[in-house]
Amino acid sequence: MKSLNISPEDLYSRAGLARAITWVESKREDHQQQARNLLADVMIRTGKARRIGITGVPGVGKSTFIDNFGSHLTSLGHKVAVLAVDPTSRRSGGSILGDKTRMDKLSVDPSAFIRPSPAGETLGGVARKTRETLLLCEAAGYDIILVETVGVGQSETVVADMVDVFLVLMLPNAGDELQGIKKGVLEVADIIAVNKSDIDEKAALRAARHYKNALHIMTPADPSWLPPVATISGETGSGLKALWKTIENHKIVTERSGSHDKKRSEQQLRWMNSLINDGLMHAFKQHPVVNAEMSSIIQKVADGEMPASLASDTLLKTFLQ
Amino acid sequence: MKSLNISPEDLYSRAGLARAITWVESKREDHQQQARNLLADVMIRTGKARRIGITGVPGVGKSTFIDNFGSHLTSLGHKVAVLAVDPTSRRSGGSILGDKTRMDKLSVDPSAFIRPSPAGETLGGVARKTRETLLLCEAAGYDIILVETVGVGQSETVVADMVDVFLVLMLPNAGDELQGIKKGVLEVADIIAVNKSDIDEKAALRAARHYKNALHIMTPADPSWLPPVATISGETGSGLKALWKTIENHKIVTERSGSHDKKRSEQQLRWMNSLINDGLMHAFKQHPVVNAEMSSIIQKVADGEMPASLASDTLLKTFLQ
Repeated sequence: MKSLNISPEDLYSRAGLARAITWVESKREDHQQQARNLLADVMIRTGKARRIGITGVPGVGKSTFIDNFGSHLTSLGHKVAVLAVDPTSRRSGGSILGDKTRMDKLSVDPSAFIRPSPAGETLGGVARKTRETLLLCEAAGYDIILVETVGVGQSETVVADMVDVFLVLMLPNAGDELQGIKKGVLEVADIIAVNKSDIDEKAALRAARHYKNALHIMTPADPSWLPPVATISGETGSGLKALWKTIENHKIVTERSGSHDKKRSEQQLRWMNSLINDGLMHAFKQHPVVNAEMSSIIQKVADGEMPASLASDTLLKTFLQ
Repeated sequence: MKSLNISPEDLYSRAGLARAITWVESKREDHQQQARNLLADVMIRTGKARRIGITGVPGVGKSTFIDNFGSHLTSLGHKVAVLAVDPTSRRSGGSILGDKTRMDKLSVDPSAFIRPSPAGETLGGVARKTRETLLLCEAAGYDIILVETVGVGQSETVVADMVDVFLVLMLPNAGDELQGIKKGVLEVADIIAVNKSDIDEKAALRAARHYKNALHIMTPADPSWLPPVATISGETGSGLKALWKTIENHKIVTERSGSHDKKRSEQQLRWMNSLINDGLMHAFKQHPVVNAEMSSIIQKVADGEMPASLASDTLLKTFLQ
C-alpha cells in the first residue's frame, strides 16, 4: 500500500477520515508516524465533541439502542461517530460493530460515521487506536462520539478513561442481571439505563430501584454527580430524549464543577504515561540479554524461588548499563 | 550506621529480624542490596505462612481486633507477625501500629512480632518494603502474617495483592457505613466481618445482611469462593474462633481449586513487573534531556494541545537513542 498524503482538510470527507484511520490502525511504522503527524496538525480541532462511552452485556440491545439513540442525535443536528473497543474482534467477523446492518438507520445516515473496533489487537493496542481515531473523528467535525464496548476483560475501564460520560445499559430482569454485574462496572458508570422497558415496565422499574440502591452504597467517582438510573427502550425509543437531556445535564454539572476539564487532563496524562510505560517495557523486553534471561527468571519468581526485588534488580541492571 | 552482617540464622532472633528489617527500610543503597542478598538466601524458608490482609475505616476497632484475634492465634500455637501498610505514617507518630500500647496483649506476647509501617514513603515504597518484611518474617518462622491498612488511597488494593485472604472490618451502623464503603473495597474482600456486634447485635446482623446483598450483585474475584459476612466483637472476642475457622476454610477451598497457588504466582509476577516498571520510569525521568523537556510537554498534553502519542514518542526517542 503506497502512503498517499492526507491533509488536515481531507478529514472533512468520509473517505479522507477513513483513510487516516487506516494509518492509525496500520502495523507499519511509517503509517503510524504519518498518523501521528496528522494528529499533531489537527490537534487544535479536537476536544470539542461530547465523548460518550456505552457498555452492557451481550443481549442488552446495544446495537438497537445506538441505532435509535444516534438517529435521535443526528435529527437534532449533531454529527455522530460510533467507535468500538472490542479486544476480541477479528475483522473477519464477530466484531460488535463489524456488522453495520445491525444499525439500519445509522449506517445510511449521512451525519453518522461508524467504525468497527480495530482487529487482532491486545486491549492496549485497541485502546491506543480508538483514542487516536476518536481525535480524528473530532477533527473531522463529529461533535458526538459514541464509544461502545462489549465489556470483555478490562475494556470498560479503558473506555471509561477515554470518554466524558459513561453509560451502562442493563437488562430489566434484575434477579439474573444483578448477579452478572461485572466488577468495576458500577464504579465507572455515570449513568445507568435499564433497557427494554417496553417488554416489562414493572420489571424495568424494579431493576432501576435495585441499581439505585447498589449505587448508593458506593462513593461516587465525581462528588458533583450521583449517577442516575433511567429506564429506556432502545427498540421503541421511549426514554431516549430524556436520556440525552441527562447526558447534557451531566456536561453542565461537570463543567461547572470543573471535573470535566480535570477528567480530560487526567485522561490525557494517564494515556501519555501508559504509552511511555509501554514503550519502555517494549524496549526492555527487546533487549537481547534481558530477553535471553527473562523466561527463566519469571519461572523462578512465579515459583517463589527468587524474590521479585532481586529479579527486577538483575534485569534492570542489564538493561540500563 | 555500620553494616553488620546478618546471617540467615540470625533471623530466628527478634533482634536479628528487626535489624534485617531496618536494612529493608533503609534509604542506603548498600543496605538495600544487603537486604536483597539476605532475602535471596532465605527465600527457601518463605511462602509457608498464611498471609492475611485486614482493613477497615478508622474507629472500626482494628487494633483491638488484632490484639485479641492475634492472641487467639498464638494461643493455638501460631507465631504471628503484624505488619502495616500506611502511606501516611510518620515514625514520629500517627502510624496505626506506631503506638504498640494499643495492642496490650500482643505487644508483650513472645509469639508475636509487631512492626509499624515504614515511614516517610510513597505507597509504592511502603508496599515494596512491607512485601520484603513479610518474607523476612516468614523466614524467621512466623506462620501467620497479618497486614493491616487504614485504607488510604489505593492501600487496600496494594495489601490485597500481597496476601492470601483479605478481611474487611465494618461498623454495625449500616445506614451510615454503607455510604462510606470505599470504591474497590468490596471487590477485594474475601471475608467481611461486622465488628462491635456486642454493642448492638441486631444492628450488626442487619448490617451483615446489607453487605451480603451488596456482595451478591458482584461477580466474585475467585469463582471458588463467595465472600462470607461474619459478625464479630474484637472487644469481647465473640465470633473470633469462627472467623479463624472461616479463614482456614478459605485456605482449604482455594488450595483445592488451585487459586491459592495461582494467586501467589500472579502476585509475585505483578510485583516483579511493577518493580521493573518503576525502575524503568525512574531511569527515564532521571535522563537529563527527558527531564528538561518533560514539564513543558506534560503541560501541552494536559491542555489538549499535543497528542499523548506524539508526546510519548518524542520523549521515548530521546531516552532510548
